[in-house]
Amino acid sequence: MLNPADEHFVATLAQSLPEGTIRAPEPRHLEEPRSRWAGLGGCVALPRSTAEVASVVRACQAARVGIVPWGGGTGLVGGQVMAEGPAPVILSLERMKAVRGIWPSENVLIAEAGAKLAEVRAAADGAGRMFPLSLASEGTCSIGGNLATNAGGVNVLRWGNARDLCLGVEAVLADGSILGGLKRLRKDNTGYDLRNLLIGSEGTLGIITAASLRLVAPPPVTGAALMVVEGPEQALELLALAEALAPGCVSAFELIHRTGPDFLAETMPDLRQPFAEPPEWLVLVELGLPHGLSAAEMLEDLFGQGAEAGLVSDGLIAQSESQRADFWNLRENIPEANRLIGAISSHDVALPLSELPGFIDEAGQALAAMGPFRINCFGHLGDGNLHYNVFPPKGAARADFAGQAYAIKELVHDIVHARGGSVSAEHGLGRAKTGDLARYGDPARVAAMRTIKAALDPAGILNPGAVLV
Amino acid sequence: MLNPADEHFVATLAQSLPEGTIRAPEPRHLEEPRSRWAGLGGCVALPRSTAEVASVVRACQAARVGIVPWGGGTGLVGGQVMAEGPAPVILSLERMKAVRGIWPSENVLIAEAGAKLAEVRAAADGAGRMFPLSLASEGTCSIGGNLATNAGGVNVLRWGNARDLCLGVEAVLADGSILGGLKRLRKDNTGYDLRNLLIGSEGTLGIITAASLRLVAPPPVTGAALMVVEGPEQALELLALAEALAPGCVSAFELIHRTGPDFLAETMPDLRQPFAEPPEWLVLVELGLPHGLSAAEMLEDLFGQGAEAGLVSDGLIAQSESQRADFWNLRENIPEANRLIGAISSHDVALPLSELPGFIDEAGQALAAMGPFRINCFGHLGDGNLHYNVFPPKGAARADFAGQAYAIKELVHDIVHARGGSVSAEHGLGRAKTGDLARYGDPARVAAMRTIKAALDPAGILNPGAVLV
Repeated sequence: MLNPADEHFVATLAQSLPEGTIRAPEPRHLEEPRSRWAGLGGCVALPRSTAEVASVVRACQAARVGIVPWGGGTGLVGGQVMAEGPAPVILSLERMKAVRGIWPSENVLIAEAGAKLAEVRAAADGAGRMFPLSLASEGTCSIGGNLATNAGGVNVLRWGNARDLCLGVEAVLADGSILGGLKRLRKDNTGYDLRNLLIGSEGTLGIITAASLRLVAPPPVTGAALMVVEGPEQALELLALAEALAPGCVSAFELIHRTGPDFLAETMPDLRQPFAEPPEWLVLVELGLPHGLSAAEMLEDLFGQGAEAGLVSDGLIAQSESQRADFWNLRENIPEANRLIGAISSHDVALPLSELPGFIDEAGQALAAMGPFRINCFGHLGDGNLHYNVFPPKGAARADFAGQAYAIKELVHDIVHARGGSVSAEHGLGRAKTGDLARYGDPARVAAMRTIKAALDPAGILNPGAVLV
Repeated sequence: MLNPADEHFVATLAQSLPEGTIRAPEPRHLEEPRSRWAGLGGCVALPRSTAEVASVVRACQAARVGIVPWGGGTGLVGGQVMAEGPAPVILSLERMKAVRGIWPSENVLIAEAGAKLAEVRAAADGAGRMFPLSLASEGTCSIGGNLATNAGGVNVLRWGNARDLCLGVEAVLADGSILGGLKRLRKDNTGYDLRNLLIGSEGTLGIITAASLRLVAPPPVTGAALMVVEGPEQALELLALAEALAPGCVSAFELIHRTGPDFLAETMPDLRQPFAEPPEWLVLVELGLPHGLSAAEMLEDLFGQGAEAGLVSDGLIAQSESQRADFWNLRENIPEANRLIGAISSHDVALPLSELPGFIDEAGQALAAMGPFRINCFGHLGDGNLHYNVFPPKGAARADFAGQAYAIKELVHDIVHARGGSVSAEHGLGRAKTGDLARYGDPARVAAMRTIKAALDPAGILNPGAVLV
């Protein structure tokens, strides 16, 4: 059993560290974007170095006090807030945000965990390189949090998720030891892959303090288009056409149901929308090409081939950077519109590509039988990753349907699982989906996870209640 | 302590499995390509199903008998042969070689561990797709072995190593439980990354029985060239030019020192060589481009820009598939020539790209001070991965220098380590490099590896003596 970070513990901890390191938590340290949990915290620790992180961990280990690692606070599954149990130490990496080095000729950048994703991207840009991880929350989320949750976003199709963009991590383990892994290497087969074990472990196996990141050369020729498709099946066929036209050069391929533009019109009437009357289904496709090719021509080819095959009925090819930005604003503001409307239940699911249309049909029909819900289905089609969120009918409030939230979630996740999918594609398990792991997880896998957690963190001080309960 | 797979154990095991599953080991099960170890084995188990693999593991677990997993036998660090200790069961996956399914529209293929790499590649080709892992030993090595060792090869620069090409694994753990992980998903953030923990663990944490693999669309336009450079520094600058010309489209970038062509002339005089007099340093560059571009034109551009910058003095652009094959034959036959000459010490090292030229200089000078050795330095420059092999002077035999082998290895590895490199880039640790892990490994990392090994395989039955001793 863990002990609370009580007054005595907090006072002792504060004395062992430089002044200002241990403070009272601010509201932002106890909140999360969906307001489903209110966090507890005896204090917040704001270390300025890896050695200070290790000191905090050792003190917590000795006193059996829990630690909740905190990055930018943008996680959607409650991994950053502990709502019950003995008050933990909230360990925020926000003062460790240095870019320790950048090696453009090696395509490598080393950043501390508290650096914001936007700062990492800007540092890469400044060196003529690109860090491809791209999320709507890039101005708030931290690279440490991105790695701890193996964040995804819109460019996974081409460059992979956070895991694929990380060459190595420095981390503090539960015993206070510092794992040094900041090599600037593409290849290193000297033993077990602890980097990937820590990435996606949501702070339950160690605290990532810095990372060696992979940069890429930005594609010299880029372009984007919105294309109107009849449905998800046609969207997938259009994706196959795009990949055949420009193999490896499709940087993003996003699916947008008209509920998204409708919600935007309702909540952000000033946002410029590309279509006066939103079509039922849209895809947003972005290409990144080598020199010597024209993105607009290739997108026209794609449109032409798509129209000929009966897949595409209308479309817009961005004629300027500002039009391209409009297309992306449409896409990137959908999560905020969702938040303003207020979902009854939100789902971040992945399916085998060929199961996507069947899932959308089946889940839509099953939900229609339950009630007059509005469904916003959008996301990273190229990755098989849908954000499938269920809302009350227009005029009703989410609170009126709170009693159905669990049943809706179970219904959606059961269909996903039956079709070989995942109930957490890119958000992680946090505290929201620990029950799903028990329900859907492969028993041998869950048992091995428990064995590893017990071996590396026997007292269970690291992010108690997250991932495994 | 482990027990030997003695006559009684083998007889009992044989009775519990279908006839023909348990046999006497053949010579190939006890050999490895460099003839440094002769393996032990009480028997070889040849299961035909994952359930049979689990039966073998449970029997070995109950009797505390070691298991040496065996793929294609091509490993270069002795991971597949146990030369001392109580005779183990050799568990060969060679009869589990089915391609269980292929989903071209999803770019996914599921194969059993015993499928040869060439068979997996052919199955992908047959579906209009490509499995990009490409090694000289593809006709012999198995996909299970490729994953267990996180194999690399010539296309890592563009498509990553075995780890990056695997979506999920099915494996048998030390307790005989079957981990089911064959999802056809790009994204799955439901807990710890056991897939990557097993990949590269060289059979010491579990036995991979099948894998879900990532396919790609083959680039429609390809081309290759050999270019003569003054040295590794210029080769790196040429790589940067190539990446700027065709970002993300450089499929391979191999460095070849003239020792390679010289050894080929000595050992395989009939092999057609592109240059009558081999240049001191060559690079082999391969591009894979979208439709609408010409590989020959782009390689000419690269040559022109390289010549203008003083990086390239001569070159050949493949004018036909057969000339391209000749270029690759030159590269792919170097390991066999090395084997025929007989190295005193072979090294598979990775360095930060900008440290490569300094390493080659420093190691060359240090070795010259030790003796009149011939050095064959070649490999995957784009990945920072060199195969740096040290040979006796012409006319002398490797046996004459056996006493210096350890000192040579230590010298090379010390320089690599001091420059932030890795002493095993793509071959793994096996039994050859366990001492290097102790010498160069981050102590917290090695301790965490031991903790994980002890937790998942407390009796130590899985590949005893490999990776960790």
